[in-house]
Amino acid sequence: MPAGVKGGGETDVGLLACDAAGVRSGLLLTRNAAAAAPVRVCRERCDAGAIRAAVVNSGNANAATGERGYADAVAMRDAAARELGIEPRGVAIAETGTIGVPLPAGRVEAGIAAAAQRLDAWGGRRFAEAIMTTDRGPKACTVRAAGVTLSAQAKGAGMIEPGLATMLCFVQTDAAVDDPSAELRAAVDASFERITVDGQMSTNDTVLLQATGAAGEPLPDGLLGAVMLQLAVEIVADGEGASRVARVTVEGAASDGEADRVARAIANSPLVKAALYGRDPNWGRVAQAAGMALAGEELEELGPETIDAGELGSEDAEVELGIALGRGDASAHVYFSDLTPEYVRINSEYTT
Amino acid sequence: MPAGVKGGGETDVGLLACDAAGVRSGLLLTRNAAAAAPVRVCRERCDAGAIRAAVVNSGNANAATGERGYADAVAMRDAAARELGIEPRGVAIAETGTIGVPLPAGRVEAGIAAAAQRLDAWGGRRFAEAIMTTDRGPKACTVRAAGVTLSAQAKGAGMIEPGLATMLCFVQTDAAVDDPSAELRAAVDASFERITVDGQMSTNDTVLLQATGAAGEPLPDGLLGAVMLQLAVEIVADGEGASRVARVTVEGAASDGEADRVARAIANSPLVKAALYGRDPNWGRVAQAAGMALAGEELEELGPETIDAGELGSEDAEVELGIALGRGDASAHVYFSDLTPEYVRINSEYTT
Repeated sequence: MPAGVKGGGETDVGLLACDAAGVRSGLLLTRNAAAAAPVRVCRERCDAGAIRAAVVNSGNANAATGERGYADAVAMRDAAARELGIEPRGVAIAETGTIGVPLPAGRVEAGIAAAAQRLDAWGGRRFAEAIMTTDRGPKACTVRAAGVTLSAQAKGAGMIEPGLATMLCFVQTDAAVDDPSAELRAAVDASFERITVDGQMSTNDTVLLQATGAAGEPLPDGLLGAVMLQLAVEIVADGEGASRVARVTVEGAASDGEADRVARAIANSPLVKAALYGRDPNWGRVAQAAGMALAGEELEELGPETIDAGELGSEDAEVELGIALGRGDASAHVYFSDLTPEYVRINSEYTT
Repeated sequence: MPAGVKGGGETDVGLLACDAAGVRSGLLLTRNAAAAAPVRVCRERCDAGAIRAAVVNSGNANAATGERGYADAVAMRDAAARELGIEPRGVAIAETGTIGVPLPAGRVEAGIAAAAQRLDAWGGRRFAEAIMTTDRGPKACTVRAAGVTLSAQAKGAGMIEPGLATMLCFVQTDAAVDDPSAELRAAVDASFERITVDGQMSTNDTVLLQATGAAGEPLPDGLLGAVMLQLAVEIVADGEGASRVARVTVEGAASDGEADRVARAIANSPLVKAALYGRDPNWGRVAQAAGMALAGEELEELGPETIDAGELGSEDAEVELGIALGRGDASAHVYFSDLTPEYVRINSEYTT
């Protein structure tokens, strides 16, 4: 719904509601200590296990906005609850956009009222459009399998004036899910926790899973994870200024934690990311990043036999990168985008 | 001495020697687990407390070069010792340049022989030129104070084909230094450990302090630290593609470690670095980076009252950035360069 928060007439308020009173939910929020007002309202005032509805504005992050921002977030949540005739504790709120600017609360409330009139069972794609910031396109999918339906919408790491990449994801299913919070945690660990654009943790990240149980069937194994991984990789591919995506796989680590640490060091290295952009099969930079993650430890010398960086030099838009540490049996992988002049341009434009 | 390691006729082999047999020294080496052969040779085969001479080539990092690279580094050290007529254990070796390419050992040895013929007491600047890679100019200084002389030469984070920023620094003094290793550690903690260009730990970083004691006087308090800080800030200003330098000061942290963690998170944030480039006084990105470093902890909301980012928006080449966390009395600062399209260009050029 275009509510004028963005100021350009684009759709900027989204409302997601579930008919079933008995919905069970899981909700994951950013751990950033400078979390935005909507995140703190969700944390402090929502019943995370029984979220009926979610309301989103994509024009203003409502972060670092003080007591007024918190009150605005509460009012936004209450307005959605009122329009839907449900308890405020059953409404999650997410916001993304400008930081440090007061919310145009009147416009948001009018947008919520208008959105409540347009709710329909096939509105997933419209909702995905409403939560976009500078994403190149909406990210949404619906899957039917083993007697259940699962729909998901996400927004990714597009540039947000004046500045942060925020990831939002909403998943709805009619499957019966015993422990939505645990299912969501496991699926996020294997998807959104395995991607990086620029290593920066947002103030606003939010992921919500709602399950009505109306289908009377459980979720097929792996379905939730597969859908979220698909959206996560779309987010990387649509990262700020991104032109290529790589998956780095670390094998032979001494522990899962070590494998993860090495994979992230490689994925977040500006040198590796610039080599990905430049199609430079530069295994020396991969060795350097791995050695940095393992600083002070014993490591067999890495080289072209243990680092497979050849695809960096290919013309492919999606490439694989591998490294074998020879220290044990643990492995991990991370998806990442390249560092491009466009990333710098987007993030250096004068915005305040 | 142009020895043909770089291949363009530039000076690329440097030799530094101390007449006094009783020289005391301190030597600090990168902790990167993928350390280059010269670093491993220094670690395993040098008498770190009694380094008489140092030999450097700036055309080839001799990193990830296997057993041959290690043998080449030993041979290079031995050649310098032979030319100078001293024990091999008293010679430090440093190399910087291409990774993963065998050293042209014959050329390096010829360069060492030629350099040994040209040693002179005023060769500090020539040595600084010999160790340059893509530094915009040599970094050297000589200070006389309280009856002692202190000279230092450094090379910094210029681009090195095919890829790493390596920091080398050599300091010589005729002061009497009781514990050169401890003095060096303290001075590095307050200088080279307080700078970042892109958060990447090199495979080749080396810092050497040599003190002859010939002046019969101790080093004045703070002199070593001041000289090294000067060189460290020059290295940041000459960082890959850098156009501006900022110093971020974190105050009110709960501990020294926390202050340091927050300062580094801000200094290494590509979003903050891009804002520095774009002259965007974007305090929201500073808040986000601080909140990421303090993930999961309680933090009073940050805002324009607690974050001083105004100078980011100025036309100055060197700016101050401040943040007050309100959690305690600890503070820390870090110098950093901006993220520019030139950084991406330099590091994405096809090089292998």
